[in-house]
Amino acid sequence: MIKAGIIGATGYAGGELVRILANHHDVEIKWLGSRSYIDQKYYEIYRNMFRIVDDICRDDHLEELAGQVDVIFTATPQGYLASRLNETLLSKTKFIDLSADYRIKDVSVYEEWYKMEHKSPELLEQSVYGLCELYREQIRNTRLLANPGCYTTCSILTTYPLVKEGLIDPNTLIIDAKSGTSGAGRGAKTDNLFCEVNENIKAYGVLTHRHTPEIEEQLSYACGKDVKLIFTPHLVPMNRGILVTAYADLCRNITYEEIRAVYDKYYADECFVRVLDIDVCPETKWVEGSNYVDINFKTDSRTNRVVMMGALDNIVKGAAGQAVQNMNLMFGLPETEGLQLIPMFP
Amino acid sequence: MIKAGIIGATGYAGGELVRILANHHDVEIKWLGSRSYIDQKYYEIYRNMFRIVDDICRDDHLEELAGQVDVIFTATPQGYLASRLNETLLSKTKFIDLSADYRIKDVSVYEEWYKMEHKSPELLEQSVYGLCELYREQIRNTRLLANPGCYTTCSILTTYPLVKEGLIDPNTLIIDAKSGTSGAGRGAKTDNLFCEVNENIKAYGVLTHRHTPEIEEQLSYACGKDVKLIFTPHLVPMNRGILVTAYADLCRNITYEEIRAVYDKYYADECFVRVLDIDVCPETKWVEGSNYVDINFKTDSRTNRVVMMGALDNIVKGAAGQAVQNMNLMFGLPETEGLQLIPMFP
Amino acid sequence: MIKAGIIGATGYAGGELVRILANHHDVEIKWLGSRSYIDQKYYEIYRNMFRIVDDICRDDHLEELAGQVDVIFTATPQGYLASRLNETLLSKTKFIDLSADYRIKDVSVYEEWYKMEHKSPELLEQSVYGLCELYREQIRNTRLLANPGCYTTCSILTTYPLVKEGLIDPNTLIIDAKSGTSGAGRGAKTDNLFCEVNENIKAYGVLTHRHTPEIEEQLSYACGKDVKLIFTPHLVPMNRGILVTAYADLCRNITYEEIRAVYDKYYADECFVRVLDIDVCPETKWVEGSNYVDINFKTDSRTNRVVMMGALDNIVKGAAGQAVQNMNLMFGLPETEGLQLIPMFP
Amino acid sequence: MIKAGIIGATGYAGGELVRILANHHDVEIKWLGSRSYIDQKYYEIYRNMFRIVDDICRDDHLEELAGQVDVIFTATPQGYLASRLNETLLSKTKFIDLSADYRIKDVSVYEEWYKMEHKSPELLEQSVYGLCELYREQIRNTRLLANPGCYTTCSILTTYPLVKEGLIDPNTLIIDAKSGTSGAGRGAKTDNLFCEVNENIKAYGVLTHRHTPEIEEQLSYACGKDVKLIFTPHLVPMNRGILVTAYADLCRNITYEEIRAVYDKYYADECFVRVLDIDVCPETKWVEGSNYVDINFKTDSRTNRVVMMGALDNIVKGAAGQAVQNMNLMFGLPETEGLQLIPMFP
Repeated sequence: MIKAGIIGATGYAGGELVRILANHHDVEIKWLGSRSYIDQKYYEIYRNMFRIVDDICRDDHLEELAGQVDVIFTATPQGYLASRLNETLLSKTKFIDLSADYRIKDVSVYEEWYKMEHKSPELLEQSVYGLCELYREQIRNTRLLANPGCYTTCSILTTYPLVKEGLIDPNTLIIDAKSGTSGAGRGAKTDNLFCEVNENIKAYGVLTHRHTPEIEEQLSYACGKDVKLIFTPHLVPMNRGILVTAYADLCRNITYEEIRAVYDKYYADECFVRVLDIDVCPETKWVEGSNYVDINFKTDSRTNRVVMMGALDNIVKGAAGQAVQNMNLMFGLPETEGLQLIPMFP
Repeated sequence: MIKAGIIGATGYAGGELVRILANHHDVEIKWLGSRSYIDQKYYEIYRNMFRIVDDICRDDHLEELAGQVDVIFTATPQGYLASRLNETLLSKTKFIDLSADYRIKDVSVYEEWYKMEHKSPELLEQSVYGLCELYREQIRNTRLLANPGCYTTCSILTTYPLVKEGLIDPNTLIIDAKSGTSGAGRGAKTDNLFCEVNENIKAYGVLTHRHTPEIEEQLSYACGKDVKLIFTPHLVPMNRGILVTAYADLCRNITYEEIRAVYDKYYADECFVRVLDIDVCPETKWVEGSNYVDINFKTDSRTNRVVMMGALDNIVKGAAGQAVQNMNLMFGLPETEGLQLIPMFP
Repeated sequence: MIKAGIIGATGYAGGELVRILANHHDVEIKWLGSRSYIDQKYYEIYRNMFRIVDDICRDDHLEELAGQVDVIFTATPQGYLASRLNETLLSKTKFIDLSADYRIKDVSVYEEWYKMEHKSPELLEQSVYGLCELYREQIRNTRLLANPGCYTTCSILTTYPLVKEGLIDPNTLIIDAKSGTSGAGRGAKTDNLFCEVNENIKAYGVLTHRHTPEIEEQLSYACGKDVKLIFTPHLVPMNRGILVTAYADLCRNITYEEIRAVYDKYYADECFVRVLDIDVCPETKWVEGSNYVDINFKTDSRTNRVVMMGALDNIVKGAAGQAVQNMNLMFGLPETEGLQLIPMFP
Repeated sequence: MIKAGIIGATGYAGGELVRILANHHDVEIKWLGSRSYIDQKYYEIYRNMFRIVDDICRDDHLEELAGQVDVIFTATPQGYLASRLNETLLSKTKFIDLSADYRIKDVSVYEEWYKMEHKSPELLEQSVYGLCELYREQIRNTRLLANPGCYTTCSILTTYPLVKEGLIDPNTLIIDAKSGTSGAGRGAKTDNLFCEVNENIKAYGVLTHRHTPEIEEQLSYACGKDVKLIFTPHLVPMNRGILVTAYADLCRNITYEEIRAVYDKYYADECFVRVLDIDVCPETKWVEGSNYVDINFKTDSRTNRVVMMGALDNIVKGAAGQAVQNMNLMFGLPETEGLQLIPMFP
């Protein structure tokens, strides 16, 4: 039985971690960290958990916790873990960080986009970027796992095969992303009130969203050269789900079948990536509550471009589900353990 | 392994049955009946099921099917099963009917409220009303199970203990219910279009809704006398969930603790009924996707009345989940098998 | 040209006042008070007003303001106006208060339900309760207008004729109300975040909601005796709209036509009350954005009760629209001036 | 007083025409055509119109109607007007067609994208494309007005100045559009049911949407050469609103101020186009219910591209509002008459 601690257990991603781990046969949650609700029953914050989780919320004592559990999930604000983590802690337990602290290898890029100093850059070398479909082997052996961003997971998985195989010019990539509101977190901000979000759609963080350099770094590795792309997130009046519509110039004349074969090469054996039948567009509703990413594409002979589309649930495959998938790999469990979640419809 | 057939597999309740049974360790779905989509892949109708269910939709051959499976779920329009079922079929397999055909024992009441002739009234005697919390033992032994309505399940479970114990006057009962739109089914009607439902709330079927006599019959059994009550359903712009707010006159001066003790007497050991902490109001979101019913109440000394509240997911505990709970009982399985669904939030 | 000042101009009710007054031919807005946004352009808070309103937000200097304008609207928290208003101010300008401070004549009732001391009880005598359909003449002559609550307006108008004419027993009244989320205001609270409200319905303030005594007081005047009723508000995932479903025992056997005649007696000439055709249920969407209240009823011979239903837009007829209707009366303008708003659909 | 007839008065665009014209001081609606609801009261279909519009719905007798009214609005399916219109009819009255029949000058393009034969190509020469901001003078003098599509209006107005001035390469244009569900019309289709649209986002009509050639034609006129672009519409769970996010390569290094000056050159004097302050992103909610288009842009020095954004209400500026704006021009009225609709928030 793996003993797990969660820091930031009362955010939306933390809550989803609890939901998934509570049904995971090999894990026992030992610590629900939430500085805002110390000593309150967890189910008083998330009443879906009434009669399921009986523990109280606790403060974040990383040192104490590290000695008691096999893995610590941090679903915390940027900078939290980077300012606390060190070799001593890492020698005692494994870390799966849902923040961006250890995702970007180049500290200067992190500091430029996140507008904060990185407090433990010396640990970046050993962190592994937790996109299972790309880094499965490295993930098995790490003790510091950087869980990817929600937009990033969807954007990379949707475009990666064509970038990797050199079928598209990565510097023509335009990623237009649409997200449900849970991605904005549970903080009490006017912008996220029901009446402000409902019956509305808008772009935000245009050209400045922090997931941009994360996508660029991974796609640069894929194609072996520097990638600069445009990433535009939009806020959609729904709770869960990310849809990515990505556009790029094709490098040459290419058939549907050729591109399809490339997607299949990378994803046919993946348990959580579903490449859809021809002409079927991904919809966020078809993956809601599950760890799936649905992907498809269409080529346009008129403009010699390809439109790639991907959909996932931002707090499952885009956060908590992927974190558990990573945990499974890190502890030698079957990758799908605890993640046989069938999308809920309607 | 229980072999199951589903007739009406592409309605919302049928779809939820597939979702639940696909993760049920003791059941194998052998037949997905859907006259509208014969020979189409099931996942082409419900794409959440892509790579999970690979079968095609088939016509409704009850005779053929009855010889092949251990249980048939009918998620069909009123009158469908009543006009087809007979002793021969019942001798071959068990039936769990999600329609109203065998819920009401008095044929004349059925025919008055449903405006149709009942074609097999002779079978009514052996049907068992599938509210597990009330009829657990009878359910174990039946081969014809009448699965309760969504509003009915919520209304009865919310009020039953106080009616049964004689603490409220059942003829003063007013049940004001609110339902998500999946309760209206998947038929293509203008009234259920997104733009007609969204940003709107209305009552419908006022004083004529067919779940009224079903609630009245069960509460009459509970108190041993004829009950006439008011039931008013409302359509709410959300997918899932029913909330019942019920009002009744208290028969005598009574404390919170006494009423609480009565609820606990009936529900403390129930796996799917959660009586909430004092002053906590049920919310449909806290049970979404699960088989739970959340219940609470408040007494009003100013008017000597009690306000009872209950919430459930109309297509889980209000339909498919309860059907599986009944199946578990009918086949001697643990009642919670396949139903350990944790409510999803947000 | 009437010069108007608005205190609390950046709440939802304040914003709607600006929207309505900006198109009112006889009014000029001279002061947009908003302590949270002093010196900011109003359109930076509500960008719908870009190129329509060019003023900045200002502090609340009631004394200064009273000398400059003909009427001050206060869309402020409970207690604000009561702690500031005095005879000197009232001698300079008229006040239309959208808070509850001057709605309830009995100070002890106010203080019990609002849990705060009333700071100017001596002014209560001269305040007029601004339900135009009931107090039209008094409204014309007041300088202190207490604009009714949103739930209250809907509850009273829906039930008043039958209470007044003695057709129902007011002490059997149960008012089950459903409101859009704008009624909760624009404050940044977790409970009102999109993800908490969306796909959810709940009752709140059960038996303790502050609009209860306001409804009771007005209905007590109507029937000449003390009324105690149950009022239960619910939060619905939509922006605007209140639906009231009210239940009461009929005092005697009575036909549809008799009740209809009573409603017509009170409302046939009312410009903003629409009694619907037989069997048509009010829907909030049909009044959205307008000052209408849609009302209807159904009688139940089975239980000898009547179900009354009413729908309005909580920030128009339930707040800002009614405030303007009152202003029109107070300044001798046609009652519908600036309020010819056609409901928007869809 | 202009006498107007509406064919297709019970679709969403037709309903909005009625809403706007009912408050237009110079127009009288003489004919509400709706083949689905002949002889029914119009307010029985759209109950927001109760006590506002008392007429019945009638059949489509174009000949009869043409002799009685000054203008006929056709909010009808593609091909309807093209198969009925002729010189005789045009000699009797003016036509404002909200369908696509007379928008595209090249018949072969129309027939290719709409998959139907054009029945009156000889009339195309005299039709005027009703985008007021581009063709104001021609509109004043036409009797056959082709009212632009909703996506088209938003896409063209958002990108036109930069295409016209040669600041972007039009063949690099990618238009990613998001629309509320009213754009799908009021037809009873499963795809548009509440439960299918709610909590979901998807692309549809990828690379095949019929508004593509309409955008291309207009932008080709603007730049004087053939334009081929990508246009991708998405369905958003909201009633109203279109947001366009458009991407293109800049032709040269250019500052914010230069681009801003270009937008101002075209739109500073436009009554219904609002170019927003720097860094403010358009949101559909800020224009809801009004005839405004909100536009802004951001330049990206990293990729040498520009992101252009535009928002409008698809059934006002994208349909009925623009039709009335065109009518005002065609009849010599002030362009804003009847269109001083302030966006509603929230």
